[in-house]
Amino acid sequence: MLYFDCDYNCGMHPAILRRLEETNGEYTGTYGLDCFSEGAKQRIQDACGDPEADIFFLAGGTQANAVVIDSLLKPWQGVVCAPSGHINVHEAGAVEYTGRKVMALPDHEDGKIRPEELQDFLQKFSDDGSRDHMVEPGLVYISFPTEMGTLYSAKEISDIHDVCKEYGCKLFIDGARLGYGLGAEVNDISLGFLADHCDSFYIGGTKVGAQFGEAVVFPHHGAPDHFFTIIKQHGALLAKGRFTALQFDVLFTDCLYEDIGRRADTFALQLRELFVRYGIGRPAVLSHTNQQFLILENSMIAKLRGLVKFEVWSATDEGHSLCRFVTSWATTQGDIDCLEDICKSVSGN
Amino acid sequence: MLYFDCDYNCGMHPAILRRLEETNGEYTGTYGLDCFSEGAKQRIQDACGDPEADIFFLAGGTQANAVVIDSLLKPWQGVVCAPSGHINVHEAGAVEYTGRKVMALPDHEDGKIRPEELQDFLQKFSDDGSRDHMVEPGLVYISFPTEMGTLYSAKEISDIHDVCKEYGCKLFIDGARLGYGLGAEVNDISLGFLADHCDSFYIGGTKVGAQFGEAVVFPHHGAPDHFFTIIKQHGALLAKGRFTALQFDVLFTDCLYEDIGRRADTFALQLRELFVRYGIGRPAVLSHTNQQFLILENSMIAKLRGLVKFEVWSATDEGHSLCRFVTSWATTQGDIDCLEDICKSVSGN
Amino acid sequence: MLYFDCDYNCGMHPAILRRLEETNGEYTGTYGLDCFSEGAKQRIQDACGDPEADIFFLAGGTQANAVVIDSLLKPWQGVVCAPSGHINVHEAGAVEYTGRKVMALPDHEDGKIRPEELQDFLQKFSDDGSRDHMVEPGLVYISFPTEMGTLYSAKEISDIHDVCKEYGCKLFIDGARLGYGLGAEVNDISLGFLADHCDSFYIGGTKVGAQFGEAVVFPHHGAPDHFFTIIKQHGALLAKGRFTALQFDVLFTDCLYEDIGRRADTFALQLRELFVRYGIGRPAVLSHTNQQFLILENSMIAKLRGLVKFEVWSATDEGHSLCRFVTSWATTQGDIDCLEDICKSVSGN
Amino acid sequence: MLYFDCDYNCGMHPAILRRLEETNGEYTGTYGLDCFSEGAKQRIQDACGDPEADIFFLAGGTQANAVVIDSLLKPWQGVVCAPSGHINVHEAGAVEYTGRKVMALPDHEDGKIRPEELQDFLQKFSDDGSRDHMVEPGLVYISFPTEMGTLYSAKEISDIHDVCKEYGCKLFIDGARLGYGLGAEVNDISLGFLADHCDSFYIGGTKVGAQFGEAVVFPHHGAPDHFFTIIKQHGALLAKGRFTALQFDVLFTDCLYEDIGRRADTFALQLRELFVRYGIGRPAVLSHTNQQFLILENSMIAKLRGLVKFEVWSATDEGHSLCRFVTSWATTQGDIDCLEDICKSVSGN
Repeated sequence: MLYFDCDYNCGMHPAILRRLEETNGEYTGTYGLDCFSEGAKQRIQDACGDPEADIFFLAGGTQANAVVIDSLLKPWQGVVCAPSGHINVHEAGAVEYTGRKVMALPDHEDGKIRPEELQDFLQKFSDDGSRDHMVEPGLVYISFPTEMGTLYSAKEISDIHDVCKEYGCKLFIDGARLGYGLGAEVNDISLGFLADHCDSFYIGGTKVGAQFGEAVVFPHHGAPDHFFTIIKQHGALLAKGRFTALQFDVLFTDCLYEDIGRRADTFALQLRELFVRYGIGRPAVLSHTNQQFLILENSMIAKLRGLVKFEVWSATDEGHSLCRFVTSWATTQGDIDCLEDICKSVSGN
Repeated sequence: MLYFDCDYNCGMHPAILRRLEETNGEYTGTYGLDCFSEGAKQRIQDACGDPEADIFFLAGGTQANAVVIDSLLKPWQGVVCAPSGHINVHEAGAVEYTGRKVMALPDHEDGKIRPEELQDFLQKFSDDGSRDHMVEPGLVYISFPTEMGTLYSAKEISDIHDVCKEYGCKLFIDGARLGYGLGAEVNDISLGFLADHCDSFYIGGTKVGAQFGEAVVFPHHGAPDHFFTIIKQHGALLAKGRFTALQFDVLFTDCLYEDIGRRADTFALQLRELFVRYGIGRPAVLSHTNQQFLILENSMIAKLRGLVKFEVWSATDEGHSLCRFVTSWATTQGDIDCLEDICKSVSGN
Repeated sequence: MLYFDCDYNCGMHPAILRRLEETNGEYTGTYGLDCFSEGAKQRIQDACGDPEADIFFLAGGTQANAVVIDSLLKPWQGVVCAPSGHINVHEAGAVEYTGRKVMALPDHEDGKIRPEELQDFLQKFSDDGSRDHMVEPGLVYISFPTEMGTLYSAKEISDIHDVCKEYGCKLFIDGARLGYGLGAEVNDISLGFLADHCDSFYIGGTKVGAQFGEAVVFPHHGAPDHFFTIIKQHGALLAKGRFTALQFDVLFTDCLYEDIGRRADTFALQLRELFVRYGIGRPAVLSHTNQQFLILENSMIAKLRGLVKFEVWSATDEGHSLCRFVTSWATTQGDIDCLEDICKSVSGN
Repeated sequence: MLYFDCDYNCGMHPAILRRLEETNGEYTGTYGLDCFSEGAKQRIQDACGDPEADIFFLAGGTQANAVVIDSLLKPWQGVVCAPSGHINVHEAGAVEYTGRKVMALPDHEDGKIRPEELQDFLQKFSDDGSRDHMVEPGLVYISFPTEMGTLYSAKEISDIHDVCKEYGCKLFIDGARLGYGLGAEVNDISLGFLADHCDSFYIGGTKVGAQFGEAVVFPHHGAPDHFFTIIKQHGALLAKGRFTALQFDVLFTDCLYEDIGRRADTFALQLRELFVRYGIGRPAVLSHTNQQFLILENSMIAKLRGLVKFEVWSATDEGHSLCRFVTSWATTQGDIDCLEDICKSVSGN
């Protein structure tokens, strides 16, 4: 069986496991006050070119989103995002659970928001005579890469950031799959660019080779007051914080983080190319990262089922469905070669 | 340096690390739908003698407390506990953050609540003409062991459970250090007993040799409806659920969990005995578990400082302070022997 | 100056004031346990033909929406509504403040939701493989009349109710302006019909002649458990509950409530007819109730400004704007006659 | 029957009713943007000697407490109060519902907190090595008068305020019965004093002759940002805000507010004197305001039952109970005279 169902279906990157073994017997401080946390923060600050970045390690993406959004918003504000934004659809209302409204902009197939539509939205709120009766948009949430595997260009993020600044709005970037964005061939943004163009972003570990863990970055000493206590209040503080940090220490040694992304992206493009070449499927949206959305005939899906794991998302018409294929740090060239054999076989070529 | 400052200052139990190595390359299901989760649940059900127990794995203790308490309470209810209860003091208001009142019973030095005082409290509420304007006590929270390292007897828990049932109240037991309770020489309760005498309890991993993780048990199919979604809503669902579960799979193989507790408890009693024997400190409360609370002269504290790590909690009088010494799965006989040498040296014997 | 800016810009209906005078010196029970509350409940039960209806009096519409929605939903659920729904736009996120997600269906100019679109939405959720990671739609919220002054027919409400039942969803009807709905010439629903076709609705007082107050109805003993305490918990319980109830006692004596609505609706249609006849504006949407949405030339708006109070909502094109004109219990035939004179004058006829 | 059961069992003060009649037909702005609101604010600012005081009108006391406390606290903070504080006991957890912890100081029979105990509490938090894991005390809540009818002296409030300032804590004063405090013979504080010695207080209307309504004061432009929207978010904004404001406009005309208090306090002391003189009961605590707490023999309680309405709070010993007798704006000299006759009769004198 080949596994392309998601990027968190295998264990952890071997380099992390190795480091766990080397350091397991050491005694350290707790709750993030330990040498691994210090080391990992240092490496991330270096990678961001921001020695003053405040960095915190949380366990998972939904948690990171809820805690950061809750703490960046003022009590009367809400968060703006794409309709397909993870916080709007697949987090069981975790943001609303903290008392905050999620406000969706117009929908686009590529999962991205448009600077000009954001501007319209914020201007309309600003002009509204009833604005004191409404939730003020206080933060914009985008994902890099998006839910559809697509990427914002540096120009787009810069434009969104400019609109945000114009309206006194903050910008937060969900980087659950950031490594696959940074590693994409077409990508033109860096961690340093991110640090200069938003109020917070997080560097996803869970989906990029870690056991668990996301590194939340508030550039330029931008962390909310008492953020440590706020993490605890949300039930998100781990006693053995060293384990989360250690993973990022490894991921940010010798560019491992970006390497993982680049490798997986390459395999993802090969996968797509195979599907197209053998007439098995066609891209639904142009993704440059490790998630590929392909439209397959239902009969083809049936043939692949016992050989390859992947997700069928929804019917696109009577005979076709939208499917998601995902590569990860664990995907190998052998997997792709094997996939080619399967493609040949099922396509009858 | 000897480390008696807490039970989460070292890595993970070697058996867990070994299992991580053995299984790292396997592909599994996600979000707890994997073979490790199934295995760990089975082992815990067996240990509880309750094949119908619902079991969920969360990352940390504060998270487990907040999620379980929130989901066991009805909207108009609150939770009752000892004034020193962890939820009342050291969780940054995580329970209140979910909208729930924490109601403290009378204070006792041993950190335990008294069945008769609980009964008084519940009866008084029941008799109060203004009860419709008050928070209804809907759940009782106790810790086993308590914050002071003390243990409830089977009789005490049974009595508390009876009082709860009489008033339609639920009972939840925080087992962040459950292993050290089960392993104590004087202990007369078992996991099976717990499963029969409360609505939920959790089996602490973080403080008993795991990297992180707590196993929440709802005996007899007692999980709240849609608890999976509620976990997600609280930001507490890990994508690679296998890693939490695997640790419990190991801890519940060949009685490792209780063995860890028993060993650390034995060392803790030896530590206390050394302190008494060498006139270094005297017990503040009679703890049978891995946390020992000793009153030391401040001059003695100063002498120990560079040799042993421990926590100074508060001044008890002009010249003395209450200190906490904690053993863990990582404590060795060598540590205790070394401590004896230190005791000899600082006491001048 | 003529006042058509809203339906809560004048005092209370004289019949209510009279009753206040008559009863002011009486001593009564408190917190809704008084003879006026009993009387008002009885009258509303009679009007609904439901002697078992549970009835509670709250102070305002946003409060009623937030308290009822919060208490009808299960912890993992959210509420579905039209994009223009009051809870989604003009209540400062009061529903989200209680931790609940508001989920919008497709937008329509008439402010109504479509049974078939609701069915699609609920079916899609039901079919979604990730539904355990999503907010379950647990309640549908509609307004009668809607924000645009339009009305659902009995058939439409019945269809929506059927869809709800099919998916185990509840239905809640916001009747902030219910009187204007019941009084509309085209209306084919009654209070009894409402009581049989939803889980809760409220009868708006504030906008239909009361000082303040909304009567929340849970037909057929359908009130959530401990609803009295939940009201208090939301800060929504008034000590002198008699004052809220007394107003409904009056409004439901001799059909006053519907009479107020009918009268104001008649004047609203006359208003619209005048605007059309004199070429001053044209309807943006066909409203049968006391709110009329008309598109006016901006130059005409300027002319009317010093003579008539009304709200300008938004530009529809370069030279026109959408305006809202509202009649109320306080509008008189004299106001309409006077408006005709103004129309004549500004239109140059 | 004589009514001494509470101070909100009768209608509104006749002067308020009169003003309602005079102004009912006027058209005004809405949501507090009206001439009555402006007038009432002006009068309260004058009475406080603080032309910069921000003033908002809410409907009830629990609502005022929850909204103000929630908005004055930072996200990681909680509120400190006496164990008998209304927010801690009789508000159904409304403060916790907003996510905030209520922290009780030591208990005293008179319902007051002690500056030195507050200082101890705040100092202990400040010294605690685990304070980052704890709820920071961010606001102190006291009531004037207290739940037991007692009063803080100017010296006591000033001392509490000083302690608060020393620790960066805010001070909020619940004045649900403020009129009865201001009117007490022993009272030595004024509204101006209050405005200079706390961050917020509210002037209770509901229990001092209004239909409903509390005036929240933030001295010296101290209102939280966007407080209007926060009120709406809590479901606490009334559309016809004029009705709340108008009542305060009347209460602060010609010193009516203090006069109401003074009169009721005088009657309350007469009531107590009668009970003592005729050997019917003895004071449980020395209250100078309109609530009198008396200990009565149970046989005496039985005799009074059909003649006088009052509340029996709790048994004090086998044969006695603590009872509450309350006067109000509605109490008359005739009521007291009538009570004397009853006292004579039941005491057999």
